[in-house]
Amino acid sequence: MTPPNGPLHGITVVDLTRVLAGPYCTMMLADLGARVIKIENPGRGDDSRQVGPFVDGESAYFASVNRNKSSIALDLKDASDRAVLERMLEGADVLVENFRAGVMDKLGYTWEMLRARYPRLVYASISGFGQTGPYRNRPAYDMVVQAMGGLMSVTGEPDGNPARVGVSIGDIGAGLYATIGIQAALLRRAGTGLGERVDISMLDCQVALLENPIARFSATGNVPKPLGTRHPSITPFDMFATQDGFVVIAVGNDALFERLCGALGRPEWADDPRFASVPARNEHHADLKQCLEARLRDAPTAEWEAILEAAGVPHGPLNGVPQIMDNAHVEARQMLLDVGIGADKSLRVAGNPIKMGDAWQTGAVRPAPRLDQDREALLGEFGA
Amino acid sequence: MTPPNGPLHGITVVDLTRVLAGPYCTMMLADLGARVIKIENPGRGDDSRQVGPFVDGESAYFASVNRNKSSIALDLKDASDRAVLERMLEGADVLVENFRAGVMDKLGYTWEMLRARYPRLVYASISGFGQTGPYRNRPAYDMVVQAMGGLMSVTGEPDGNPARVGVSIGDIGAGLYATIGIQAALLRRAGTGLGERVDISMLDCQVALLENPIARFSATGNVPKPLGTRHPSITPFDMFATQDGFVVIAVGNDALFERLCGALGRPEWADDPRFASVPARNEHHADLKQCLEARLRDAPTAEWEAILEAAGVPHGPLNGVPQIMDNAHVEARQMLLDVGIGADKSLRVAGNPIKMGDAWQTGAVRPAPRLDQDREALLGEFGA
Repeated sequence: MTPPNGPLHGITVVDLTRVLAGPYCTMMLADLGARVIKIENPGRGDDSRQVGPFVDGESAYFASVNRNKSSIALDLKDASDRAVLERMLEGADVLVENFRAGVMDKLGYTWEMLRARYPRLVYASISGFGQTGPYRNRPAYDMVVQAMGGLMSVTGEPDGNPARVGVSIGDIGAGLYATIGIQAALLRRAGTGLGERVDISMLDCQVALLENPIARFSATGNVPKPLGTRHPSITPFDMFATQDGFVVIAVGNDALFERLCGALGRPEWADDPRFASVPARNEHHADLKQCLEARLRDAPTAEWEAILEAAGVPHGPLNGVPQIMDNAHVEARQMLLDVGIGADKSLRVAGNPIKMGDAWQTGAVRPAPRLDQDREALLGEFGA
Repeated sequence: MTPPNGPLHGITVVDLTRVLAGPYCTMMLADLGARVIKIENPGRGDDSRQVGPFVDGESAYFASVNRNKSSIALDLKDASDRAVLERMLEGADVLVENFRAGVMDKLGYTWEMLRARYPRLVYASISGFGQTGPYRNRPAYDMVVQAMGGLMSVTGEPDGNPARVGVSIGDIGAGLYATIGIQAALLRRAGTGLGERVDISMLDCQVALLENPIARFSATGNVPKPLGTRHPSITPFDMFATQDGFVVIAVGNDALFERLCGALGRPEWADDPRFASVPARNEHHADLKQCLEARLRDAPTAEWEAILEAAGVPHGPLNGVPQIMDNAHVEARQMLLDVGIGADKSLRVAGNPIKMGDAWQTGAVRPAPRLDQDREALLGEFGA
């Protein structure tokens, strides 16, 4: 059912999550070898099954993050369905939910109850604002926490509107921190024999991602703003125009800067007092960009790429999704997987970036389940 | 030395990392209670010590992500310093490095050698492109993988230039996936008694974050583009103009959409065939935005916030860093910590979003170390 050599083989996760933050977390656990039993609302199932685009009537959004899971539809207000859930929890290692804070309590599944009945269970909640604090009952989605958490305020063109990060980093970020919290609790349990309550707030996770703007504001009182493509504290770390397009150059220390200047045939820049140190370059970033682009416009991107590569200067092209999906390196790293979708189609999705060991291949992947697909087998195992 | 009740208490991490991806990973491990021994280059130490802004001559960038660690300067080409490192590794659980691929091998610390001498050691490498594949020897920084990995291609204004995500998500993403990989390897070790090799590529991690654009492109062949503040598949999930500013509204299903229409005094919109389902609203997003903004311009943001809150519709304001740092909820969640910096100053930094248990407070934090600060104590423990 799950990658047999995955590091989390033997771990059973009961998964009450839907849409993205929770399912992303349980996808990570499943990709690492855990058994994930997804419990969905009877009727419609996970909301994200309705989110397009669709392949043969099935949601690509859903298919991407629900691979390697099984599905059963249970009504958590129905006594016999609750009994099935509770039998599952007896053997489970992890329970994950991302309802609004308070919903599980109203269903009678408080931490006190769960801890008393299932002392080894790690119980993780992911919610917009967490289980405590004045906003705890407010609903949230990715867009809300990206805006409230400050990330939009530092993303976009200088003097333009704030921009949303082009992926749901509010959800995915929370899913990643939740995965870390669950695994930490499992490691602690190896010593104590006891489960743990993990309380992940999407807003908290945005604040955590904002660590550098927060530190800069604390140190200086200057409000961090969108800078387009420029790094706020390291220069040159930016996208530059060439004769025929753009190239990204990322130079984080003085030795690399000297190498860059040499590669561009302008070794004298490294001795210019405006450019002699990271803080100096950062102060004179506009002058430096002008110098660099004046030189980079002498040749097309491909030529500069070859020169920068030979000099060992970190650089790269701007890729869109099609370029990512047609790239020998991405292929070699097994970062694209084909999962089944619809009657007999397949969908190319992002793979697992956690590469570990020799024997364990992340290529083994089961398609996302149809709603209630595993009812019979799961009732056979956990039914009355 | 470390939070005594943290879930990773008892785990020792030997930390050869610098700048951001690696230090972010070991910060997570330290915040969770692991003992992290940071090994730095003699002389200058971690490059990020030179990155501004500075407080009393100390880098805020460095201070934010190196809390709770100790520091010793070792020259990895010097025989007696290597002996100190190797004695540390005898008792260590985890070794983390983020040199360019191949550097550790040249130093004689191959996985084969490490596995043979320290069979329980989890050895994690974070590099720009990973230990395998055609780009494995290329250097990289955050900016390079944000550009190459496609995230910039979906971030920014529609028809504008691509924008960098306003934080170093290329580094932080890799740091988070590395933390997950290390903990998964520790969990496997609890069963097998054996360590594991974890190979994290910053580019792989960008591809993983791009899961939804990749799935959309696979399903439709349409190239994902920057959409400003709009979600690509869910509508209304956007920032809207009000009478005096902006409000973010995030409505992920039909029931919520009905509630939104009611709260705005426009219940008839829910019956409009253009807006009756997620796919329909997504197709007619421009019409819907026009309808919503025409209505939202009737009142100021604060008034709409109260109305949306009462209706239970996910919404929020656009916050900048100062608003995040002066927010009762963020405070209540302990998402801001004060760490010492310089002679006697302190710096407010982002806290740990993994909230767990009752006894363990994430508030306990030691300031980032001065270079070689713990030399004497560590040589006493690991010296000849």
